[in-house]
Amino acid sequence: MSTSLLDIVAQLDNFPYYEKEPIRSNALLKEYRALKIQGINEILGYISNTIVEGTPWPEEHWDTGSPDAVVLKTPPRTPISARTKIIENAIHRIAQAGNDGILKNWRNERFPVYGPDAEVVMEIERSASAHFGIVTSGVQMLCYVEDANGLIRLWIAKRSEKKQTYPGMLDCTAAGALTVGDSPRSAVVREATEEASLDKTIIKRDIRSAGCISYFHMKGSSSVVGQENPTSLLLPEVEYLYELKLDEGVVPQPNDSEVEDFRLWTVDEVLEALRNCRFKLNSAVVIIDFFIRHGIVTPQTEPNYIEIIARLHRRLPFPTAQHCSSL
Amino acid sequence: MSTSLLDIVAQLDNFPYYEKEPIRSNALLKEYRALKIQGINEILGYISNTIVEGTPWPEEHWDTGSPDAVVLKTPPRTPISARTKIIENAIHRIAQAGNDGILKNWRNERFPVYGPDAEVVMEIERSASAHFGIVTSGVQMLCYVEDANGLIRLWIAKRSEKKQTYPGMLDCTAAGALTVGDSPRSAVVREATEEASLDKTIIKRDIRSAGCISYFHMKGSSSVVGQENPTSLLLPEVEYLYELKLDEGVVPQPNDSEVEDFRLWTVDEVLEALRNCRFKLNSAVVIIDFFIRHGIVTPQTEPNYIEIIARLHRRLPFPTAQHCSSL
Repeated sequence: MSTSLLDIVAQLDNFPYYEKEPIRSNALLKEYRALKIQGINEILGYISNTIVEGTPWPEEHWDTGSPDAVVLKTPPRTPISARTKIIENAIHRIAQAGNDGILKNWRNERFPVYGPDAEVVMEIERSASAHFGIVTSGVQMLCYVEDANGLIRLWIAKRSEKKQTYPGMLDCTAAGALTVGDSPRSAVVREATEEASLDKTIIKRDIRSAGCISYFHMKGSSSVVGQENPTSLLLPEVEYLYELKLDEGVVPQPNDSEVEDFRLWTVDEVLEALRNCRFKLNSAVVIIDFFIRHGIVTPQTEPNYIEIIARLHRRLPFPTAQHCSSL
Repeated sequence: MSTSLLDIVAQLDNFPYYEKEPIRSNALLKEYRALKIQGINEILGYISNTIVEGTPWPEEHWDTGSPDAVVLKTPPRTPISARTKIIENAIHRIAQAGNDGILKNWRNERFPVYGPDAEVVMEIERSASAHFGIVTSGVQMLCYVEDANGLIRLWIAKRSEKKQTYPGMLDCTAAGALTVGDSPRSAVVREATEEASLDKTIIKRDIRSAGCISYFHMKGSSSVVGQENPTSLLLPEVEYLYELKLDEGVVPQPNDSEVEDFRLWTVDEVLEALRNCRFKLNSAVVIIDFFIRHGIVTPQTEPNYIEIIARLHRRLPFPTAQHCSSL
């Protein structure tokens, strides 16, 4: 049986909604402690009890006295770099406590963590972000062509079979993480240049911001109620969406070994590939949102139209970023 | 001080989020009873305690024994018409108990109420829908022109000064409620023809479905925590969005006394009118979503980008419609 578009969205946005499943939501959150910083009310992330209990948290920097939270004891106005250093030490202890993946996948790229006024309060190494359950951000770009009749075809990337993550799966034209110092626009221009070898002048002139999606993913979780996997990592995520209409004849080209090829797919081919789970999950939802915006997926074609749209734009219970340059 | 785009969204989507304000959410919901139907688990709407207590609920049809719910005692497979009749009698009793507006605004148009499988379970007169707190739906269409440089101007309607609701305010090009028997597409084609006198052939050929917005509005509520107005009506709503790019020279024309005029507005003029609260509230958010989709409001221009997008696509805690014709 083929996968429905809602199945795809629900696989990604799989953290329960309190209003729909209050008992399961509360039970699940009991498996975690809130990541907090002294003087800031907001919850900034979640660390699993397994990790909290398996790791030393030096009292000099951490208050683990509450059963609900792990609190970084830095006072307000502590420099970002000081908090980042304390977090980095914690990351190394978490890695040593049996989470080797953190060091194996270490990228030397950090995600910013935002406070209630969208100010950066600390930075966390990319490979450890999920262990702290912080909101991470990225950009996703779809290139397409549109013929005289309005028929759309999409430039779909196929990931290299040798890539460590999701080898051989289908992808948007270009995508990347928004790490420290990136703005969505600068990141998407960079990724489109680097991954798809597109001309920077064309990108800057024609790329269009088209909204964002947000969802709350649990990685490695059981979907059976009452059988939550205590080591599930929480990955709340925001992806800024961009689209770029290319002239016929402008062809994205792989620039490195990450992408095997780019090919121009018809809408029907993409829909079939979605239903056969050939897309990387968080790229699949970008295409679903594109199809909704462009009138390809409509209330007439999609029974779960409202639910899909709501779940692709989830309000995350954490402070999030501002990239408004005039601020 | 001018109103921010987030202020506009927050005025409309003003029912609290449990995850952000659990205490206020729970306190507020205690002012209401869930509207339920025997044999269906889902909550279908909310009726305020004031209305429940001020109205007789004949035991033959209603179970008001629970402090949390008002349950329509019709068994599964009861015809829609039978439930609708019982509801209509209740509406008349609610009207007689001091809610004269229901009869004064009676439209003889009914909203469908959906069950968990998106099946219609009953119908409620439009003027009484807010008294039952059911999800209502509508369509909203924006016509626009785009010059050779990609600059967009919008066809904005000005409501007649004589209109009973929101006289003189600005509006999308066409809009209307989705009452019993309507599909989003049939409704938007009808409204665009009737309200803007556009040629049906052009509409059907060029109109584009562009998603939906959903929000949870409380009408007549105090925004002060702990000072909820017990007579607030709850209006969870879904609006299906359509856009129609017109050639220069195609001019929407008022067809009746509802619209005073249509005028082609620049983006800057529309933004200024939004910030000066000149738009009807649930039309203002349609324009905000259009600006986001079209890259006019971007992460670079809008500090509250993520929050605005999430709140315009709220997951409503009620069953909603399916308009998929193949079902």
